[in-house]
Amino acid sequence: MKKTSFAFFGATPSFEKPLPVGQLYFPSWERYSAAFEGIFKRQFYTNNGPLLDELEEKLQGFLEVKHAICVSNATFGLMMVADAMGLSGKVILPAFTFVASAHSLSWSGLEPVFCDVNLDTHQMDINQVAALIDEDVSAIMGVNLWGGACNPKALSELASSKGVQLYFDSAHAFGCTVDAVPVGNFGRAEVFSFHATKILNATEGGCISTNDDDLAARLRSIRPTYGKESPVTIARVANARMSEAQAAIALMSLEDFPANQKNNANLYRLYEEQLETIPGLKLIRPTGVSFSNSQYLVCQVNEREFGLSRDLLIDILKAENVIARRYFYPGLHRTIPYDSALPQYLDRLPNTDSLCTACIQLPIGALVLAEDIECICDILRRAQECAAMFRPRHEK
Amino acid sequence: MKKTSFAFFGATPSFEKPLPVGQLYFPSWERYSAAFEGIFKRQFYTNNGPLLDELEEKLQGFLEVKHAICVSNATFGLMMVADAMGLSGKVILPAFTFVASAHSLSWSGLEPVFCDVNLDTHQMDINQVAALIDEDVSAIMGVNLWGGACNPKALSELASSKGVQLYFDSAHAFGCTVDAVPVGNFGRAEVFSFHATKILNATEGGCISTNDDDLAARLRSIRPTYGKESPVTIARVANARMSEAQAAIALMSLEDFPANQKNNANLYRLYEEQLETIPGLKLIRPTGVSFSNSQYLVCQVNEREFGLSRDLLIDILKAENVIARRYFYPGLHRTIPYDSALPQYLDRLPNTDSLCTACIQLPIGALVLAEDIECICDILRRAQECAAMFRPRHEK
Repeated sequence: MKKTSFAFFGATPSFEKPLPVGQLYFPSWERYSAAFEGIFKRQFYTNNGPLLDELEEKLQGFLEVKHAICVSNATFGLMMVADAMGLSGKVILPAFTFVASAHSLSWSGLEPVFCDVNLDTHQMDINQVAALIDEDVSAIMGVNLWGGACNPKALSELASSKGVQLYFDSAHAFGCTVDAVPVGNFGRAEVFSFHATKILNATEGGCISTNDDDLAARLRSIRPTYGKESPVTIARVANARMSEAQAAIALMSLEDFPANQKNNANLYRLYEEQLETIPGLKLIRPTGVSFSNSQYLVCQVNEREFGLSRDLLIDILKAENVIARRYFYPGLHRTIPYDSALPQYLDRLPNTDSLCTACIQLPIGALVLAEDIECICDILRRAQECAAMFRPRHEK
Repeated sequence: MKKTSFAFFGATPSFEKPLPVGQLYFPSWERYSAAFEGIFKRQFYTNNGPLLDELEEKLQGFLEVKHAICVSNATFGLMMVADAMGLSGKVILPAFTFVASAHSLSWSGLEPVFCDVNLDTHQMDINQVAALIDEDVSAIMGVNLWGGACNPKALSELASSKGVQLYFDSAHAFGCTVDAVPVGNFGRAEVFSFHATKILNATEGGCISTNDDDLAARLRSIRPTYGKESPVTIARVANARMSEAQAAIALMSLEDFPANQKNNANLYRLYEEQLETIPGLKLIRPTGVSFSNSQYLVCQVNEREFGLSRDLLIDILKAENVIARRYFYPGLHRTIPYDSALPQYLDRLPNTDSLCTACIQLPIGALVLAEDIECICDILRRAQECAAMFRPRHEK
């Protein structure tokens, strides 16, 4: 193989346009225009409109929960839940998650306690969570990663035995089930992201699910859009309303969920077959669930076996217009302000540190065709075979 | 006049449908559908899309500021500004404002210091602001009310002489000018609301304006949507992005601003003429501005002269399908959590207390026709003339 077969060295990129990670499933023009014409005709654009009502009812059915409370995004959903649950002091969460999980705590005046994750599943290490609970800890924020789950049943038992509260950042887990129970039913509340990159998409948006009537009433008043309920006393509003435009997209996306999940699962299987044959790339399958939305394709790069670092591989793919991501990077304990405010975590989270240098997220979702996966895996295979060609000279 | 001429006593309401306060100016179907078709064709729904870019550039021109940073709503805008300015301790603001002004402080870990307002202008009392500044106060949040302004120049001088920061809640003041300088140019930053009830409307939405490059860069990173700038180091994100759907509506609304302001001004003049002739109703004209958006029609009810309490008048109007509002009510110092956490303000804000029992907001904006104002003022006039008829028996 020659250098001239890689865009990294100047060849024509394998893809004409950048192929992003992220689900990006959108409706057809017919459905989209009908939905937006309806909003125009009603001249009802926000604050508890008919589409929001319909969406929340359908989500409640889909998730099998008593309350689905749609919000402007998952970050605000997490802030609202911490507030509505009356948390104080510290909250345990993994450092291997999206920054907003931790930042939601900061806006609510809470301090994060970072736990490590399991090196194989990437889910939070429950033994470590147990060891971290002390009298300052008021809650655990479980994070369900990669279309999998962090063992919510074991976390529930732990939380109740220790007398702390439990809620979930389930931004990655919409439509997943744990022993046939939909994610959304665990802890006191769960928070989903409906960002365009997620399988359930409201462009921007999110949803809080709970089976707790009192908590739901407080959340609706914090939002503040009460649905069919009356306002209750709360200490502060968040103004995290979901508009009718967001609800319209989410309703169509919910209708499409079965088809989109199936498409993801098929793409996932194609990756699975191909990646098996490439040394040094380990596919991280969604764990802890009986059904997954298959919305993430995550691998670990073993630099020694693959012959290239994760970061160099990302550059090689980028040159081919495959926009793979190092996700998550860095671990939250190494980001501002935690790196200086909470330096105790810098040498305590070896698995997080290791995954942050090894994880790569590959494109899956609406924009990815079966033949694209063949092409992406071919690039990966060739990069591995020709690894020496890419390494900086002083390493040779 | 007989009881039978009032819907309050069972007559047919004067208006077939409820006539709300709130601007509610929306574009025509042709413009609306073209804008949304564009979003669909681009499949670019959020996070620094072309419509957001265009909107921010046009707002910068309109407001004559260096940076217009659009956000999901004004509440989050205020939170973000407090964070980006690095405030700590206490912030002075009037108790006669919308709850979100104070709640934005709470999310940012700040304590409100409530000042009173002027009984004639309803704007904050600058002498009292000066007296309230102590070493714990890091900033003043000026609130520009009713399409008027709270003397931003005097506040700027005060803030700089006392060494505290200054920013503005200008939710009511989009498009207003102070001595020909657009509101948006005062203090370190100003925050506008683009809610559907405001003259500049994004359904939900808002905007932060500032002439401070560093502050703007931090705000874009907190949002986080960077525009053409690079991200900078910040302590937490807020995920307060404006979607393309919001930006599309706001762009059309900005184009329509001159026509909508003119319509408001005409409606305002009609009210002005009629209200003059009704005893006990005092129109509160926008003060402190050289140009107003005329987006609020606010009166003070003098119960003795009018013969009825403000609250009873609101019920009489409501029966006629005129949805007048007691705005603001109650004063923030009498709301949870401030009433118990900060009881020192309960007997210190007599003007706020008085206005909260006397103010009434009447419909003005897209849904109000000239003949509606005649009809509304006719109800007001007849209610005043027949006041005794409405008063509970034990008062007679």
